[in-house]
Amino acid sequence: MVQEELLGQVSISGVTITPVAFTDPPLLNAVGVHEPYALRAVVQVHTDAGISGLGETYGDAGHLQRLQVAAEAVTGADVFNINLLRQRVAAALARDTVQGGHGMSGMVTGSSTADRVLSPFDVAALDIQGKLLGRPVSDLLGGAVRESVPFSGYLFYKWAGHPGHDEDSWGAAVDPDGVVRQARRMVDEYGFSALKLKAGVFHPDQEIAAMEALREEFPDLPLRIDPNAAWSVETSIRVGHALDGVLEYLEDPTPGIEGMAQVRQAVSMPLATNMCVVSFADVPPAVAAGAVDVILSDHHFWGGLRRSQALAGITETFGLGLSMHSNSHLGISLAAMVHLAAATPNLDYACDTHWPWKDPDEDVVLPGALRFTDGAVPVPTAPGLGVELDQDGLEKLHQQYLECGLRGRDDTGYMQRINPEYELRSPRW
Amino acid sequence: MVQEELLGQVSISGVTITPVAFTDPPLLNAVGVHEPYALRAVVQVHTDAGISGLGETYGDAGHLQRLQVAAEAVTGADVFNINLLRQRVAAALARDTVQGGHGMSGMVTGSSTADRVLSPFDVAALDIQGKLLGRPVSDLLGGAVRESVPFSGYLFYKWAGHPGHDEDSWGAAVDPDGVVRQARRMVDEYGFSALKLKAGVFHPDQEIAAMEALREEFPDLPLRIDPNAAWSVETSIRVGHALDGVLEYLEDPTPGIEGMAQVRQAVSMPLATNMCVVSFADVPPAVAAGAVDVILSDHHFWGGLRRSQALAGITETFGLGLSMHSNSHLGISLAAMVHLAAATPNLDYACDTHWPWKDPDEDVVLPGALRFTDGAVPVPTAPGLGVELDQDGLEKLHQQYLECGLRGRDDTGYMQRINPEYELRSPRW
Ligand SMILES: [Mg+2]
Ligand SMILES: [Mg+2]
Repeated sequence: MVQEELLGQVSISGVTITPVAFTDPPLLNAVGVHEPYALRAVVQVHTDAGISGLGETYGDAGHLQRLQVAAEAVTGADVFNINLLRQRVAAALARDTVQGGHGMSGMVTGSSTADRVLSPFDVAALDIQGKLLGRPVSDLLGGAVRESVPFSGYLFYKWAGHPGHDEDSWGAAVDPDGVVRQARRMVDEYGFSALKLKAGVFHPDQEIAAMEALREEFPDLPLRIDPNAAWSVETSIRVGHALDGVLEYLEDPTPGIEGMAQVRQAVSMPLATNMCVVSFADVPPAVAAGAVDVILSDHHFWGGLRRSQALAGITETFGLGLSMHSNSHLGISLAAMVHLAAATPNLDYACDTHWPWKDPDEDVVLPGALRFTDGAVPVPTAPGLGVELDQDGLEKLHQQYLECGLRGRDDTGYMQRINPEYELRSPRW
Repeated sequence: MVQEELLGQVSISGVTITPVAFTDPPLLNAVGVHEPYALRAVVQVHTDAGISGLGETYGDAGHLQRLQVAAEAVTGADVFNINLLRQRVAAALARDTVQGGHGMSGMVTGSSTADRVLSPFDVAALDIQGKLLGRPVSDLLGGAVRESVPFSGYLFYKWAGHPGHDEDSWGAAVDPDGVVRQARRMVDEYGFSALKLKAGVFHPDQEIAAMEALREEFPDLPLRIDPNAAWSVETSIRVGHALDGVLEYLEDPTPGIEGMAQVRQAVSMPLATNMCVVSFADVPPAVAAGAVDVILSDHHFWGGLRRSQALAGITETFGLGLSMHSNSHLGISLAAMVHLAAATPNLDYACDTHWPWKDPDEDVVLPGALRFTDGAVPVPTAPGLGVELDQDGLEKLHQQYLECGLRGRDDTGYMQRINPEYELRSPRW
């Protein structure tokens, strides 16, 4: 049980970066609609101890190039020295000129490139450390304070199917009834104890009606709405007043720190964000302006798990709430999110996840390690992240990446190919 | 080399708290003079894996009682779950009514009791984790970014010896010549590449003269002065102007966030503090007021090593500098300070230490693990803190504690027994 002797340096001997694509339903948002495939990159970090670790991140072409730059920079480094990985990644990227590929379809544009690229290496390094040490990643982050991590059900307006394809099993949700039907299935299948509607798609009055319908159907569940800054300050305040008493928090109603601060003055519910505070540089102006009550962290753009814990220390210190943002993701990301959330005492809200939108047959980790019970994921207790790479799954999703032709996330372009009249507008209402 | 199997829970089976006293020279400060003995407590945390870990903290009677409360609260907890230790310590102390005993002689009164008590348990838990895993504590904190940690030479006005005792080897330092002589010996013996004068003892003009004498003798060394808030805003600004171009930073010239903010507006050099920002609760008002440029962290009152890293994340995010404060301490504390500083990339300044004022024959760790080279301490690379308990040294210093009669730090009372006219005044000038 006891490791009596000194564990020497464990050097990174190489990195394998594999872009993958997995099927994604036509989920609508403020900038368009999800394409038929979501892209991710699986980062395998190998060591001279024979142990490899896993990270998962965006799969856009520009990001893949930067991951490659970072992979070369970290090779040879001690896998226990995440500070050094950070320094090397930042230095390598400072010399880099790749543009674009942020993986967010234009919605989270201000995040730190260095932190976004560092993230999968941080996660993989912690996975390796945990495997070497025989302890779960949550222990390396200070220890789990909860045995399972609650998630919220992430509702989307959606079409019945991608144009030209069959209807998917979820069917359409383009009105309050459709949203409630979707929510009912999600709550029944997963047990979620909070619900969030991705909004900014229809006229605000229709989205208010959807939230009121959810409130009627689920009188006890905390509810959130997130229009991704599609509303003006005036509209945001109007919606805030209309949904007074209905919302747990109002997420990114309007663009920018200044606009959010104006809305916050005028509405009663907490304001949350994963758009106007997306990097450490955004925190001081947001605090000074009193712009938000809750920050949605996301280890994929906050620099990995250790940096996300630094964010948690900041929100605790400044009296801000902490929740967690999600993009479409696979099992490696879910495992990392769960370890982080478990070891973050002040993670005050159920976390977001796109998990129910993923085809259960498509993943890059072997089944069994991750499951939902009563809307929560039990924290894996096996060493490291507690998930194992599914080589066949990885190969299948990589082939899908090669064949699907997508090389970056472009919700707006896809929407415009379907509806040439569609225009990007912020705020839209 | 590889720990293939899961390392199970490692439970805390007991805690041994040993108060110790070690000889201390008559060092003068703004509230009096150091007594003949400095008090500390050595905290040994034992586990059911047979591995123990070390922490060091204040030795005042009230603090010892609270440590005992905390010791009972953490017994049975997994030594890898520092988050749980924190929760248990905070909950136990919330029920506690012990007064006083902060170990700071009234100089750092606003620090968090829960964080002060948690600290040695956090350090000991990390020491155990490192020993179990075969890795130095710096690795558990994210990895060392420097092989050795630079310290500044900590100069004090002092008497030649304690009244009624022999002169000590350092002799008197009550004027610029004495301060320069002391500094010369410290630089020659330890190689310090920065110097700090503990001030607030004599009239500010005399202390300005001492700094000018140091500048003349050491034209290339960064210099700091710390009067422990003995000056009014007006006096602080006058001294700041007089020492324009001389100081690396001006430390706690005046009491309180508001006063510091006023001084900061009027002087050119950075303002540092370990008095007006001593807990996480102090950070938001200090940031809002623009009160300081540099925070001196101290894991003994910021809740241990992991919480001190949260502070480092805050200072990095808010563009504040980070340095490190010291009280009179033994080898366990020095080892912990070195691991923390090594793994904190944005620790921008040479750290404070009282180390040269300690009798080299008095310590609770075996010699050899800690040494100064060119003013810096090489980071121990052995598992855990890298220091080993010296049972004989501990017993000797515990006997000294029992015999010396001191049960709390009281620089002011000691000074008043020597000079009954002495009055505590803040600000004094
Ligand atoms: Mg959002
Ligand atoms: Mg000080």
